[in-house]
Amino acid sequence: MPGPPLTISDVERAAAKALPPEIWDFFSGGSGDEVTLRANRTAFDEVFVTPRTLVDVAAPAMSARLLGTDATMPVAVAPIAYHKLAHPEGELAVARAAKALGIPLTVGTLSSCRLEDVAAVGGPLWFQLYWLRDRGQILDLLGRAEGLGYQAVMLTVDCPPFARRLRDMRNGFSLPETVVAANIADPHERVAHTGEAGASAIAAHTGALMSPTLTWRDVAWVRERTSLPLVLKGVLDPRDAALAAEHGVDALVVSNHGGRQLDGAPPSIQALPAIADAVGDSCQVLLDSGVRRGADVLKALALGAAGVLVGRPVLWGLAADGERGVEAVVTILRDELASVLALAGCPDLAAARGLRVTWRGAR
Amino acid sequence: MPGPPLTISDVERAAAKALPPEIWDFFSGGSGDEVTLRANRTAFDEVFVTPRTLVDVAAPAMSARLLGTDATMPVAVAPIAYHKLAHPEGELAVARAAKALGIPLTVGTLSSCRLEDVAAVGGPLWFQLYWLRDRGQILDLLGRAEGLGYQAVMLTVDCPPFARRLRDMRNGFSLPETVVAANIADPHERVAHTGEAGASAIAAHTGALMSPTLTWRDVAWVRERTSLPLVLKGVLDPRDAALAAEHGVDALVVSNHGGRQLDGAPPSIQALPAIADAVGDSCQVLLDSGVRRGADVLKALALGAAGVLVGRPVLWGLAADGERGVEAVVTILRDELASVLALAGCPDLAAARGLRVTWRGAR
Amino acid sequence: MPGPPLTISDVERAAAKALPPEIWDFFSGGSGDEVTLRANRTAFDEVFVTPRTLVDVAAPAMSARLLGTDATMPVAVAPIAYHKLAHPEGELAVARAAKALGIPLTVGTLSSCRLEDVAAVGGPLWFQLYWLRDRGQILDLLGRAEGLGYQAVMLTVDCPPFARRLRDMRNGFSLPETVVAANIADPHERVAHTGEAGASAIAAHTGALMSPTLTWRDVAWVRERTSLPLVLKGVLDPRDAALAAEHGVDALVVSNHGGRQLDGAPPSIQALPAIADAVGDSCQVLLDSGVRRGADVLKALALGAAGVLVGRPVLWGLAADGERGVEAVVTILRDELASVLALAGCPDLAAARGLRVTWRGAR
Amino acid sequence: MPGPPLTISDVERAAAKALPPEIWDFFSGGSGDEVTLRANRTAFDEVFVTPRTLVDVAAPAMSARLLGTDATMPVAVAPIAYHKLAHPEGELAVARAAKALGIPLTVGTLSSCRLEDVAAVGGPLWFQLYWLRDRGQILDLLGRAEGLGYQAVMLTVDCPPFARRLRDMRNGFSLPETVVAANIADPHERVAHTGEAGASAIAAHTGALMSPTLTWRDVAWVRERTSLPLVLKGVLDPRDAALAAEHGVDALVVSNHGGRQLDGAPPSIQALPAIADAVGDSCQVLLDSGVRRGADVLKALALGAAGVLVGRPVLWGLAADGERGVEAVVTILRDELASVLALAGCPDLAAARGLRVTWRGAR
Repeated sequence: MPGPPLTISDVERAAAKALPPEIWDFFSGGSGDEVTLRANRTAFDEVFVTPRTLVDVAAPAMSARLLGTDATMPVAVAPIAYHKLAHPEGELAVARAAKALGIPLTVGTLSSCRLEDVAAVGGPLWFQLYWLRDRGQILDLLGRAEGLGYQAVMLTVDCPPFARRLRDMRNGFSLPETVVAANIADPHERVAHTGEAGASAIAAHTGALMSPTLTWRDVAWVRERTSLPLVLKGVLDPRDAALAAEHGVDALVVSNHGGRQLDGAPPSIQALPAIADAVGDSCQVLLDSGVRRGADVLKALALGAAGVLVGRPVLWGLAADGERGVEAVVTILRDELASVLALAGCPDLAAARGLRVTWRGAR
Repeated sequence: MPGPPLTISDVERAAAKALPPEIWDFFSGGSGDEVTLRANRTAFDEVFVTPRTLVDVAAPAMSARLLGTDATMPVAVAPIAYHKLAHPEGELAVARAAKALGIPLTVGTLSSCRLEDVAAVGGPLWFQLYWLRDRGQILDLLGRAEGLGYQAVMLTVDCPPFARRLRDMRNGFSLPETVVAANIADPHERVAHTGEAGASAIAAHTGALMSPTLTWRDVAWVRERTSLPLVLKGVLDPRDAALAAEHGVDALVVSNHGGRQLDGAPPSIQALPAIADAVGDSCQVLLDSGVRRGADVLKALALGAAGVLVGRPVLWGLAADGERGVEAVVTILRDELASVLALAGCPDLAAARGLRVTWRGAR
Repeated sequence: MPGPPLTISDVERAAAKALPPEIWDFFSGGSGDEVTLRANRTAFDEVFVTPRTLVDVAAPAMSARLLGTDATMPVAVAPIAYHKLAHPEGELAVARAAKALGIPLTVGTLSSCRLEDVAAVGGPLWFQLYWLRDRGQILDLLGRAEGLGYQAVMLTVDCPPFARRLRDMRNGFSLPETVVAANIADPHERVAHTGEAGASAIAAHTGALMSPTLTWRDVAWVRERTSLPLVLKGVLDPRDAALAAEHGVDALVVSNHGGRQLDGAPPSIQALPAIADAVGDSCQVLLDSGVRRGADVLKALALGAAGVLVGRPVLWGLAADGERGVEAVVTILRDELASVLALAGCPDLAAARGLRVTWRGAR
Repeated sequence: MPGPPLTISDVERAAAKALPPEIWDFFSGGSGDEVTLRANRTAFDEVFVTPRTLVDVAAPAMSARLLGTDATMPVAVAPIAYHKLAHPEGELAVARAAKALGIPLTVGTLSSCRLEDVAAVGGPLWFQLYWLRDRGQILDLLGRAEGLGYQAVMLTVDCPPFARRLRDMRNGFSLPETVVAANIADPHERVAHTGEAGASAIAAHTGALMSPTLTWRDVAWVRERTSLPLVLKGVLDPRDAALAAEHGVDALVVSNHGGRQLDGAPPSIQALPAIADAVGDSCQVLLDSGVRRGADVLKALALGAAGVLVGRPVLWGLAADGERGVEAVVTILRDELASVLALAGCPDLAAARGLRVTWRGAR
């Protein structure tokens, strides 16, 4: 990075240099032919958002209440497995940066630091739940998260099953010995270290640990067992969004898992409007998958999202420069968002929802 | 192929290395400027299919009943002429692989092994009929196929006439001496061995052997002469689909002959929805032309197909590694389809038909 | 050309080698930034035409009656100035080839051979009229054309004014001494030989000779002074098409002058449907600008044209190989058209008008 | 420039050679990832305008009345800061060229020559107002402009806030000592000379000088304090256009500030029709951002604009060849516009508004 990074792309390039190729591939790759991965980005560039003018925008109010948590802007860190792959301090470094800048961090079931250690850092935290085969362990994790002050439970509903991620399969990718799923009780179940040619140890480990049988009944079961706000991550069909509202879910994340699950799924920004229409005010709607710029956040707000999650950019920052790198990434997004809100004539986030959106070539 | 192939593209590359250029061109080329050939692929990438979630997809049921034949998945091998061009064992190797994996193989009028020899392998077989000038020979072929246990008759209705395939014309392509149309009675009519500059011996041979006068009356004639399910391959206009239903046809294949006949015809995936609408439940609808991935199969199902045919991928597998290569191709498709069905929240194929489909840039 | 040409592109490449660069530029270039020139081609590739099937197409009837003239196919040679730039025999070689293959040739006001000399070759001929400043000369040309047996008058209505054709301006293009506007009475007015840097002598000559004041009153004036069918070339707006029908015009050519006049005009194939709708049966509709393949002709027929004009391809043939080159071009188009008509299930041209047309990405 | 320039692109290339890279970047760059900057150009190429024919277009009447000022064509020079960056004579050279060719020049608050000195040149002038923090200074500027005979006040409403212009940030761009904001009263406030790495001195200076609190109340305040026509520059939302009409504004400029403010804003040519619909006859509508050709002007007229502003092209001309370069640019646009109006069958500008517009791929 010559000079401080000015864009997420700058950070991405720095991370590409800093990371071993197979870890770079693990974080940056998608599933299948990566059609959805690429579409996530191109779709954002095909959305235009029309600025209002002659509004006093000396200081746009960016603070948001996401999943009941106060945040300095409508951005949170998406759940990502194994931060230690990017940097030895892993989730702890990310938590310190997120706390410093006042945005929520989602700590994953597959985090490489324990929930307890991350909670010790402080700052607003959410807990992401994968649907483990062992329901006792789910209860254990829910209980620990709630006890430690985590402020929301984000249930990932688009994984498992685990998709064919060809880069990892070609690399025979496995975790280095120093990185484990720190929250899993049984030490034997924590490790994804034995790669074989043509197969991903991550895929095998995930498949062994998690159950693909998750249904709405299980959502109801979780709903009864936590008093925290419950958010489902990975909803793209408006019929599922409506069902979520009926099941007492508090929020949704419109997401295609960053192009890492169903290759051929629509870009999340294209799926967003129908979801927002379907739930109206009954659920909060967040979005992830492809957010790289303040302007992307603005587009998501204009199309009905209350906020966004960012995943890879945070990991890139972590890889490039540890805690400081994460701070750089979040600061770039904050500065960009402040800038585009002001430029769009939005004194606050509610104003952004009223912006007129058109698509490339629309007439 | 470094390592086992993980995608059809891997197999394609291996076949490109294994085959002499003029045979590669014969299999992989299209007609005219190959506009439709390319559009077959790009159209698939412009279709997005929206996954459902929170459905128990531990083991998607993939078995299908295609043309009245049980198959382990909604995929069959398309009729392709002269498999021996790809490998000395020709259709026999393909039949063994198809049998092993439980998918139907369509044996063509222009197969390079005799119907009898392929039938001896066993496995579900369909017979593809070209409209020969000699009606007695048609009756002979229909009788042999039915007697040998072939389970359906697939009448190709988009050829002849034979299109201008420029690669073959430029190559002056002809069959090597070892490859003949083994099912044709008259030995003199079996061979397409005399190429001349600027002309394709295949085109000349096809033109001599087959009649471009095929009409709905002939469909009725065939319909009366076989008790097998009758399927028309090469229907793209919904008016023809409706006519087929009226003529007692059991199924249709929406196909542009892999971009090898009318250059300028629509991509089959784009033509599919109107066909599916036109026939409703009166005919089964299959699709071919451009299917290379499990995700493509899913998109075809979502747009109304009961299944797909794959042609070139099977030939590429055959060229790359004989029977094992074909098994590799079919296995890749099976694994990919199982993966994407599960990822799309489809416990069975019927669920796939209910998936929401959008197109790139749709709003 | 290694081997005989199989496509118009083959001929184009041969012409590019055979012609001096500034003459190549004069024939192949467009106006302005050549946006319309390029769009003419890409638009054809974005149109799909859906074949019918199970129609007896042993021998599609291709003969057409264009502007009251019998033609062996729905194709005529567009008016092009100065054929001698491409070959010393100029229009005479083209006339011999057109006669041999039975398609009409439009001889231009600016032809480099005299109307009388072309007429001596025989074959169906049309006369293209530019709106000269000297109305006496217009009458002279009309009288000569009618007297010589020319069978239609094609009045070009999109030129003058003459567009900014940057290639010619940069080349300071002028005619060689051997090439003149042979039909112009005054020898001093025949020549466009004095080029200057940054200017096109063709543009200057055209501007001096022709009047940009042509209106519907003049159309009426011409209509009264010839008994031949009258066709207007260069109509793109349906309102003008309707006016033409009101003025007793027999036919229209939907054309953007091959991308050589208004840069930014729509591709002719995109403009065609609205024109065909506007005139219904009251006028025959032809199309030019970008036709390079039999499939392009088929698309034009499907969208409502009775036939097409081809310009540059004929000139390329002439440049590459004189009369034989023109025959090669026309033969390629004839063979391609016969092929695609049969492949589209069209026993005749009327059937082509009933074909279903879709556009890339349409849904 | 080998030979005289024939297109604005020729001039652009000459300017790119003549200017130091950081000044080239300052003038030619956009904000963010320059998505809107690029879209401004591609959108123009996706608009087709259908010519009328058989209209007497011997001499299209191009004169326009823009903001109450007579102009020889519907084009004016957009406000651009600091012309002296391009050439030592700065705005004076541009004013001389604009006067010679009879088009209005908008002199900016941040011009590098004083309003008085530009006025001394003569020619139609407009004054562009940035919303300075010091309201006394605004009054001073308004009074000076009106007293000096400036004929309109153009209030820029899309800046500040000042966008993230990454090229300038990466270059640590600042003004050379010889270039100052000559109209600013306090000499200390005139300079933007102290660049730092990763920051733009222009951005800092603009932020210090101007207020982002501009609202409709301020528009009303200005409206009361000048008798000149008042135009708002930077309106893209039709709701704001309607508000402008209600506030007694005389005209609007549909503009995204040349892609330099909100990256992600729609191309101005795409935003234009809704604005023109919204205001009807109550306001004059101008357009800027991406105009590079006479055909672009024609497209803007056809979609409802009364005229356009051109910015960068004028600066490129200035950089390439001073006053003569500006004259070359304006002459190119004038010649191109005269040409395309005539080619589109428009005897005057009103006719251009009636032209039929289609978009690429429209059906």
